[in-house]
Amino acid sequence: MGLPGAVVDLYIDREPLLRGLARIQGIVEKKPSNQNYAHVLMEASDTDLVLTATDGTMTLIGVLQARVEGGGRCTADAAKLFAIVRLLDASVVRFQLTRGARLSVRAGNAEYHLNTTDGSDFPPSPARDDRSNLTVPGADLRRLVDETYFSVSMDDNRYGLNGAHLERVEAADGSSRLRMVTTDGSRLSLSEASLTGDLGIPKRTLIPRKALAELKKLVDEVDSSWTLSFGERSLTLSGQNVTLLSRLVDGDFPDYRQVLPTGAKRRVTIERDPLVACLKRVQLMAADRNNSVRFSFEEGRLLLSASDARAGDAREEVTVDLEGAPLATGFNVKYLLDILSNVRCERIQFDMGEALDPCLLRVPDRDDCLFVVMPMRLD
Amino acid sequence: MGLPGAVVDLYIDREPLLRGLARIQGIVEKKPSNQNYAHVLMEASDTDLVLTATDGTMTLIGVLQARVEGGGRCTADAAKLFAIVRLLDASVVRFQLTRGARLSVRAGNAEYHLNTTDGSDFPPSPARDDRSNLTVPGADLRRLVDETYFSVSMDDNRYGLNGAHLERVEAADGSSRLRMVTTDGSRLSLSEASLTGDLGIPKRTLIPRKALAELKKLVDEVDSSWTLSFGERSLTLSGQNVTLLSRLVDGDFPDYRQVLPTGAKRRVTIERDPLVACLKRVQLMAADRNNSVRFSFEEGRLLLSASDARAGDAREEVTVDLEGAPLATGFNVKYLLDILSNVRCERIQFDMGEALDPCLLRVPDRDDCLFVVMPMRLD
Repeated sequence: MGLPGAVVDLYIDREPLLRGLARIQGIVEKKPSNQNYAHVLMEASDTDLVLTATDGTMTLIGVLQARVEGGGRCTADAAKLFAIVRLLDASVVRFQLTRGARLSVRAGNAEYHLNTTDGSDFPPSPARDDRSNLTVPGADLRRLVDETYFSVSMDDNRYGLNGAHLERVEAADGSSRLRMVTTDGSRLSLSEASLTGDLGIPKRTLIPRKALAELKKLVDEVDSSWTLSFGERSLTLSGQNVTLLSRLVDGDFPDYRQVLPTGAKRRVTIERDPLVACLKRVQLMAADRNNSVRFSFEEGRLLLSASDARAGDAREEVTVDLEGAPLATGFNVKYLLDILSNVRCERIQFDMGEALDPCLLRVPDRDDCLFVVMPMRLD
Repeated sequence: MGLPGAVVDLYIDREPLLRGLARIQGIVEKKPSNQNYAHVLMEASDTDLVLTATDGTMTLIGVLQARVEGGGRCTADAAKLFAIVRLLDASVVRFQLTRGARLSVRAGNAEYHLNTTDGSDFPPSPARDDRSNLTVPGADLRRLVDETYFSVSMDDNRYGLNGAHLERVEAADGSSRLRMVTTDGSRLSLSEASLTGDLGIPKRTLIPRKALAELKKLVDEVDSSWTLSFGERSLTLSGQNVTLLSRLVDGDFPDYRQVLPTGAKRRVTIERDPLVACLKRVQLMAADRNNSVRFSFEEGRLLLSASDARAGDAREEVTVDLEGAPLATGFNVKYLLDILSNVRCERIQFDMGEALDPCLLRVPDRDDCLFVVMPMRLD
């Protein structure tokens, strides 16, 4: 039997509670415009405690098993509750709330009382307007995000670039694939994964940057299958006992196909590890010039050079395989390091036209990702 | 043979060079008032490369073995050189400098050129005015700093408290000890270690906070014997191939003996680990009130409570052994956590008078450290 007059009365295992509270820390806001955006809504009924957090744009819902002796709901500060549960030294935590009082959180000799609201003005979870849904293995979804996340535009004024564009495409073998594309205007990343399910995706499907980051964390944590559902202006990602809902960005992603270079005049293939080592070092002398480094592709070798007015200059050399005529151009090495750090590969291939033509980067033997980087003009 | 016209020409092993450059990163300044405070002076001669860095108040000198083909000296940006050497992928690094040119740093196919000065206006290392010196095992010196560093005043206006006071004292068994004392006005830490050597220490020996931090890093890294030498206004710490010189704080440390409580009316002994766990949790509800927590010492138990106007309140209980009458008082729990985090102990002992009397904390069975914490007034 629960406490007389209790609104909420339950016992819950600390470990899953901690994981559930950890997940929502990326959603709730530290300086919220609305108290609800810093709170977690807790709803207890039957054998479940449902945790909901929202920032007004995205909502995360987690279902946890609990021994519920009295059902009901309330909200409390999500960061504070997480901090307390993290430090509790017990395997089971008890939540109790009597009407008009504060939420009691107890474990062993520790007893905390948290200020609460009754949740009556907590924003309702967005209605799921799921016109289509598809199932993706967690590992594939994670790869799609890893290989594209870094080139989402950070400029909040470029609305149509502030997210990841999703679309269905047909692969050369006739199978269907989910394609994710991001660009910030100076570079573009494209990654694809095979899919099963109903593949109708609304035409303008642009996942906001913050939702991508949360999506990445969720699939990192739970490596099972996930269901993606799309409404006209919303996305739902569902896994076991957890659901992420997000509004889509209300902007038009540019026609990226126009900027995909074709018919390269020269192709350079380079081992990843020695290239990464050189790029990281040469970047030390390129920081004051937007990471601009001179790339001189020659027969059998690539010479890299950079200079920094205050510190000095750098010169590096790496072995390459060049097909075509030599070329000197410039790149922002951060863009190249972003690709090489997030894409698993042993070698990388540069397909290039002239010095200022967009450069296409591919992983040899992989047809499911490609990258475009605009060269920099060297003075 | 070195390069014709070379000022500096040497080969040096990368690992010790990297360690030597790492050590000076805490000395050099990021936004220096004087370029020399961001540079490292490199002096090559015979079989040595001597690295010197200074911030005007303290100086670190390291001697590294090198194959010197041309002796000479120059300075270069210490942070940039460290960053380059850290990323080099080779076991040996070559330094070359020709007159009027930049310092060439080469390893494998990597070649860097650093802007330099000839070191002619680099501040000369302070003359060592060593009136006395003593030898301390690294582990003891480290313990002295660990047990006192946290209560050095952070208030730069309290000049006499901005460092660690050192003095020679006689232990109960007649042996000599080195005593280090720090206080910020609300708490005091005192730690002692046995010593050998000439123990004459100038009366006003106050080691600056920044020098303490560097001293701690050095003894953490090299666990051998160190020699401490004292001049009238300077301290020298010498270990194998490394020397730290620091000015002493030019202020008067207060007469701390006056605030050491004597004749406690009650003594409480508590197990460290459960107390630390409770203090960390209860601190979550005390942050908005200067970490003020109510301590109610009773027969067999200590009740801790705190409240936060916005978040809620906390109540904890821990088993204690109380000799004397019950007492309720308040403490800044950060002060207690600083002690319990930096002092190795299984139990801690509180010697107390009345609610607002200074509280003496000791580790049972240790006579070489003690701590004083002023209680807080509870409203």
